[in-house]
Amino acid sequence: MSLLTLGSVAFDTLETPFGRREHTLGGSGVYASFAASFFTNSALVAAVGDDWLPEYSGLLRSRGVDLEGLELRANAKTSSWSGRYLSNMNDRKTLNYDGGVMAGDYVPIVPDSYKDIEYVLLGNMSPLSGMSLLDALPSTKLVVADTMDFYIRNMRDSLMTLLTRVDGLILNDSEAELLTGIKNSSLLAARKLLEFGPKFVVVKRGEYGAFWMTKEGEIYIMPAYPTTEVVDPTGAGDSFAGALLGYLAEAKVLSPESIKQALLYATVVASLNIEGFSLERFQFVKRTEIDERAKRFRAMLA
Amino acid sequence: MSLLTLGSVAFDTLETPFGRREHTLGGSGVYASFAASFFTNSALVAAVGDDWLPEYSGLLRSRGVDLEGLELRANAKTSSWSGRYLSNMNDRKTLNYDGGVMAGDYVPIVPDSYKDIEYVLLGNMSPLSGMSLLDALPSTKLVVADTMDFYIRNMRDSLMTLLTRVDGLILNDSEAELLTGIKNSSLLAARKLLEFGPKFVVVKRGEYGAFWMTKEGEIYIMPAYPTTEVVDPTGAGDSFAGALLGYLAEAKVLSPESIKQALLYATVVASLNIEGFSLERFQFVKRTEIDERAKRFRAMLA
Repeated sequence: MSLLTLGSVAFDTLETPFGRREHTLGGSGVYASFAASFFTNSALVAAVGDDWLPEYSGLLRSRGVDLEGLELRANAKTSSWSGRYLSNMNDRKTLNYDGGVMAGDYVPIVPDSYKDIEYVLLGNMSPLSGMSLLDALPSTKLVVADTMDFYIRNMRDSLMTLLTRVDGLILNDSEAELLTGIKNSSLLAARKLLEFGPKFVVVKRGEYGAFWMTKEGEIYIMPAYPTTEVVDPTGAGDSFAGALLGYLAEAKVLSPESIKQALLYATVVASLNIEGFSLERFQFVKRTEIDERAKRFRAMLA
Repeated sequence: MSLLTLGSVAFDTLETPFGRREHTLGGSGVYASFAASFFTNSALVAAVGDDWLPEYSGLLRSRGVDLEGLELRANAKTSSWSGRYLSNMNDRKTLNYDGGVMAGDYVPIVPDSYKDIEYVLLGNMSPLSGMSLLDALPSTKLVVADTMDFYIRNMRDSLMTLLTRVDGLILNDSEAELLTGIKNSSLLAARKLLEFGPKFVVVKRGEYGAFWMTKEGEIYIMPAYPTTEVVDPTGAGDSFAGALLGYLAEAKVLSPESIKQALLYATVVASLNIEGFSLERFQFVKRTEIDERAKRFRAMLA
């Protein structure tokens, strides 16, 4: 196995200007591990309850996502989230959240066959769960954590400890501002974040793209893929992170070239994901379609 | 002469978080013609009053800007503008504006030696003045107009007529929204603008860069140069437009390669301009410095 993703598996209820879906497949771990599977052998560590739908396991396995680390716990409920996107598609409102079996104190169970995994993505999850996972993995080479406002607000101390144990951090510009207190400059915020422990930070700026900054001051910039087909932004950041790490796990080297190619693929994969609700569009994407869009996108860039 | 710029010449009074300058050199024509001069033979058509300071003519001439088209009118006042930037450096407030000799009904006087000019930049100016200039130029090959919220709000009909006479339009994303009524999607707004006449539109997105869209649906994307050295954003858009057109006037061809290179240079030149008040920093910039920064910037991009 090349990349292990820890992240939530959830039932989502979604409202966007394009419609509504109830009780559909979602969660950071689902989007990230699915996105990574286009590039490398992808495994997911997560837990679901006895309300889980086996067809969703089938959907993930159909892309080759290894689910040996998907714990099915009896007498427990699968995590659920419901949210609504406003007309600009950038702002969203969480209407309901129930961590279920993956609530804040969730301890991931790592199959023995994963113990030698070198590339790890800690998806949007409790920092405590992330550290628990790392305790079980003695051979990591590259650990990258995604985070979000909820953990910054409510578990800051744990998050700060986690940051001393990761190589990279991925987050939104608004989250970078929240975590550092630095307003109006995601560049300065990124520099500050690098003092917290990570060797590199990837700041996502929604419709404007993302940049990667290293402790040595290197910067790589990727605009967003220009699309007007946004149907459901859920999982955009997770699929971005999954594709980024999936590509890097396969490249096995961090170089300017591999980082830029990873950012390009991550951008393209995220743009495909948001063209449909849940995995409705994403599940039919093929690597050839990703490569074709990546080629068209590259032609638009300098 | 290769590029003719029509644009304002003004005395600016500026306030930013970094300080204040009174009665200093500014105006869209000044920034644009100066920026263009790094790449091509640049000429400026504008008017000033008898309060004009000859040392400013010397500053422009020192970079090779041709001022045969700078009309010195007796018993008239040079245009003046004063504004204040808020702490995020994106929002600015106009405190005072006096069009002076270049008010809305200003008719540019075009020297005979400019009549065969093929490349024309209509800087931020009254659309009536722009059309008057075009009437005097029978041989144009590429005409690009910059515009701003003031003319969109107050001279919309004239602006719409001007748009049927230009090849390209440059504007901010907020101005694109204002002119089209299309919110939350600068891509859709750009598509709409292309129905108004221009063959291509360049939408500037401040700290997030710019994109170029053609009627045929081609898109070229350029992020902003990552800088934390913003001292005075005045003239950023004008110097962007000047460098863009200056490079294209010298390249003499619109191809994916020349457009992308022009966007890269425009971004770099604008980033140098905003590192100082007025032309305080800009006047000491050399082409070698632009090329070095362009090379560093290119290494950050895909």
